[in-house]
Amino acid sequence: MKALRFDGNLKFVSDALVPRRDAEALVQVIYAGICNTDLEIVKGYANFHGTPGHEFVGRVVESSDVSLIGERVVGEINAGCGICDLCIRGDSRHCAGRTVLGIKGRDGAFAQFLSLPDRNLIRLPESLTDEAGIFVEPLSAALNILEQVTVKPSDRVALIGDGKLALLIVLALSRAGCPLTVFGRHAEKLQMAKEFGANHTEIGNKRSEIHTGFDLVIEASGSPLGLTTALRIVRPRGTVVLKSTHHGTTAVELSQLVVNEVTLVGSRCGRFHQAIAMLQDCQSQLTRLISHRFSLDDGLQAFEAAAAPDTMKVILRID
Amino acid sequence: MKALRFDGNLKFVSDALVPRRDAEALVQVIYAGICNTDLEIVKGYANFHGTPGHEFVGRVVESSDVSLIGERVVGEINAGCGICDLCIRGDSRHCAGRTVLGIKGRDGAFAQFLSLPDRNLIRLPESLTDEAGIFVEPLSAALNILEQVTVKPSDRVALIGDGKLALLIVLALSRAGCPLTVFGRHAEKLQMAKEFGANHTEIGNKRSEIHTGFDLVIEASGSPLGLTTALRIVRPRGTVVLKSTHHGTTAVELSQLVVNEVTLVGSRCGRFHQAIAMLQDCQSQLTRLISHRFSLDDGLQAFEAAAAPDTMKVILRID
Repeated sequence: MKALRFDGNLKFVSDALVPRRDAEALVQVIYAGICNTDLEIVKGYANFHGTPGHEFVGRVVESSDVSLIGERVVGEINAGCGICDLCIRGDSRHCAGRTVLGIKGRDGAFAQFLSLPDRNLIRLPESLTDEAGIFVEPLSAALNILEQVTVKPSDRVALIGDGKLALLIVLALSRAGCPLTVFGRHAEKLQMAKEFGANHTEIGNKRSEIHTGFDLVIEASGSPLGLTTALRIVRPRGTVVLKSTHHGTTAVELSQLVVNEVTLVGSRCGRFHQAIAMLQDCQSQLTRLISHRFSLDDGLQAFEAAAAPDTMKVILRID
Repeated sequence: MKALRFDGNLKFVSDALVPRRDAEALVQVIYAGICNTDLEIVKGYANFHGTPGHEFVGRVVESSDVSLIGERVVGEINAGCGICDLCIRGDSRHCAGRTVLGIKGRDGAFAQFLSLPDRNLIRLPESLTDEAGIFVEPLSAALNILEQVTVKPSDRVALIGDGKLALLIVLALSRAGCPLTVFGRHAEKLQMAKEFGANHTEIGNKRSEIHTGFDLVIEASGSPLGLTTALRIVRPRGTVVLKSTHHGTTAVELSQLVVNEVTLVGSRCGRFHQAIAMLQDCQSQLTRLISHRFSLDDGLQAFEAAAAPDTMKVILRID
């Protein structure tokens, strides 16, 4: 089958093996989205080798559960061992033995087919388009913030970043009813942030110097420098949520965190069901985020486009 | 007056000016304790120049509140501006315009006299010895953890470090009734940790490799490497409390924090009243932590002793 493969270099191949895993479903991929984590993976993040890609919508072609066959699905990307304490408590997202689609020990979605356990697959309602399905995974990750942190309507909230994930976070936070300031670098993206519910936007790094004292700061810039800004603008005893994953280490002035008694919360994936529910209302807004569509054959070009500063969402059409 | 002064180098002087600040009390220092923050300050932490020292017990010699004169006191080290929102809400510890005794904009306790606002002074009950008074400030800092983080009796808790502050944290945590493992480097100090309530101790860095999955990890080793260990042994979605302040930056693998969705809580000072109450029960235990007593004249020697690996608490007798 066709696939993008990463072994230190990213390549398009047409002879990749169809991934078949015991007792798992085989899914024919319809669309796959490129996210910032994918861009980090091809720089070496997570030491992943294989087929990247974890945002997808597809159709089940093989499964031991015949009711799934032919269904249009999205997929929870973490596949737990199924037997450890965490898995038994329903948190396979943190199972130590987990594989993660296109990120850890499991080939991903930039291919004609992918394999996932039946229990990871979630039917996409008829009312949602294929393209909207791409946003289920990243919107879940955005909504996860509201599960981890209590946001009061009176809280002053700042968001650092104006990329794809940041805009999904704007949408998620618009439900909390709190005043939101977005710090970004791109006028058009910040305009979209306003349309998605931000009360105020600031362009350029320096602007954060005059805005401080935020109760909650969400770092989703994708840049290691974002945390430095976040620690500068959060109030003492405030909270910083970290969404960005980078390859390598970041120099952090830890004493600043201690002296100001800041709480730093790492935040990754979320649950799909609430994202699917939310998409019913906002799928047309979200699909406006798609700035480029490529075929899988042009996957390398798609990665180049995704890394360019003004690009929003890049999706791959798989046929 | 006699004082230790730091201007890039630490010196003993006998001609320092008695610190007099408008509308503040003048306190004659009886004892002052050297803590890890002081050792960091003389390496450049917080860019402080002046008289260091913030753990003290003393006697009020001048005050506009005549009832204070002659009283034996300890002192809240943060002096807020008194007019900002935080100060009005009673949190002068985080006032942006605050000075901090011997740490920020205010000469400290390694001197014959110090100045603090009346409202910062707290009478030491007759039942507590002078030496026990030294522990009010650091024990408050230890107890502050229990105000910031909910510790359940079923939580598996780890503490990294076996120094002075770490042992006070053991004592504070012994009230939470949770199983506590202490990772340290010194057999004698770990023995004391057991006497203070630790259930289990491990010596040497490597030992942490076989103990993981802690619900709560407290980093109080004073070493930048402590956080790396903490992030390795905390469970996914667990909490790490950071107590150590260092000069400079630390390389942190932030993606580990994000992927495991760990919460990192910076923790500094605490409230004095509960520490004073607790000291009633444990002052004899705590004063066993004092390994060296020096006169202020031998302050440089005292700093050398405090920096040595096997030293516990070093206190200065001021006369």
